Amino acid sequence: MTNPTAAMIVIGDEILSGRTRDANMYHLAGKLTEHGINLSEVRIVSDEAADIVTAINQTRTKYDHVFTSGGIGPTHDDITADCVASAFGISIDVREDARLILATNYENGVDDLTTTRLRMARIPDGASLINNIISKAPGFSIENVHVMAGVPSVFNCMIEWLLPQLDKGLKMISTTVRVDLPESKIAVPLGLIAKQFINTSIGSYPFYENNKHGANIVIRSTDKKLVLDAEIEVRKAFNL
Amino acid sequence: MTNPTAAMIVIGDEILSGRTRDANMYHLAGKLTEHGINLSEVRIVSDEAADIVTAINQTRTKYDHVFTSGGIGPTHDDITADCVASAFGISIDVREDARLILATNYENGVDDLTTTRLRMARIPDGASLINNIISKAPGFSIENVHVMAGVPSVFNCMIEWLLPQLDKGLKMISTTVRVDLPESKIAVPLGLIAKQFINTSIGSYPFYENNKHGANIVIRSTDKKLVLDAEIEVRKAFNL
Repeated sequence: MTNPTAAMIVIGDEILSGRTRDANMYHLAGKLTEHGINLSEVRIVSDEAADIVTAINQTRTKYDHVFTSGGIGPTHDDITADCVASAFGISIDVREDARLILATNYENGVDDLTTTRLRMARIPDGASLINNIISKAPGFSIENVHVMAGVPSVFNCMIEWLLPQLDKGLKMISTTVRVDLPESKIAVPLGLIAKQFINTSIGSYPFYENNKHGANIVIRSTDKKLVLDAEIEVRKAFNL
Repeated sequence: MTNPTAAMIVIGDEILSGRTRDANMYHLAGKLTEHGINLSEVRIVSDEAADIVTAINQTRTKYDHVFTSGGIGPTHDDITADCVASAFGISIDVREDARLILATNYENGVDDLTTTRLRMARIPDGASLINNIISKAPGFSIENVHVMAGVPSVFNCMIEWLLPQLDKGLKMISTTVRVDLPESKIAVPLGLIAKQFINTSIGSYPFYENNKHGANIVIRSTDKKLVLDAEIEVRKAFNL
């Protein structure tokens, strides 16, 4: 069995400009790993319709799931829902179920739904809604594309609701062995171990700390025994 | 004058797995904004040759610059330099200038250059070297693709050396106005201002804090007067 794959698209001028440090990608990456879905690619694109549509179409055909974050609020720069509709070539409009859910966020219900607020009930035809317990305005899934808000607390609650609906893969087991040697002294023995454990992902992540080089060797597989066996070999190779 | 554009490619299994939170992208985004280069897209890809080659070829033809981070050490999973050579269809081998620079990192100079260490002197034909004052092993630029290490301290020192060699754009001026209103009450007046200041990027970044909705309105342009004028309009619209 192979785990499902996924891409994430962050719609984020504020991240590209360096104003904000990403939080949603880091959060999703951890959650997907727990759920047994392999996050294989992330793209951060600007609030430009053409770029968003291209990113959606290039990823949705390649991966089992695509998760997007950002651009589904009511302001002029919120164009994600329209871009998704355009990527799929389907129409989008205010939808009754989304409108009624949105109304629960306001004191006077539907009477408070101004034209601006109604923008948050625009849902592409055939999409199913993603729950938002914080501010009600729903996200949506269409085929394998899941569209969520950019505000981290809302993004996180949408993921919390969505993930249990998606098929679980086998949980990725991982272990880290810290080796206090420069990578040039690690490479040969580690390369041999990587060849021996061909179905295990073995990565070397160098660091530089207090003027000394070292590396974290990360061993990952859905098979716990393989991870443990490879760890034993790594520890043996470096007398740990 | 339009500012140069850029993409960044992070080669990072450890970021996709959620093990590590990205630091290099956040750092580069800020530095490029200061330098007047517009970071337009970021891709985070896994340590798979085909994915790295595709990402390089799709971005290098679209943007003025491509910056990569990660995968240029001496271990089996360090395949970035080979992928860059393959993307350009050129050969790669240990190069004398890189070999001599690398040797300065070791007590006995070139005599200490084992086969493994020499992997870090493999440079695609025609590339120019990027200085690494920390651990000597150089990065390189080939045409508009700049290849750097993943270790944050090394990545940062390479950027420090590289950026002054690249044409500066006009510095992006930005200002942020915090509006303590839900976006649905911000959208109409802000949309009108965005239409009025068509050459200014005006984004609304909602937040949710202490059970209250608000948004940071970010106004960006290389023209300081436009930014100030737009800020006055935003403050007027929301009585700030």
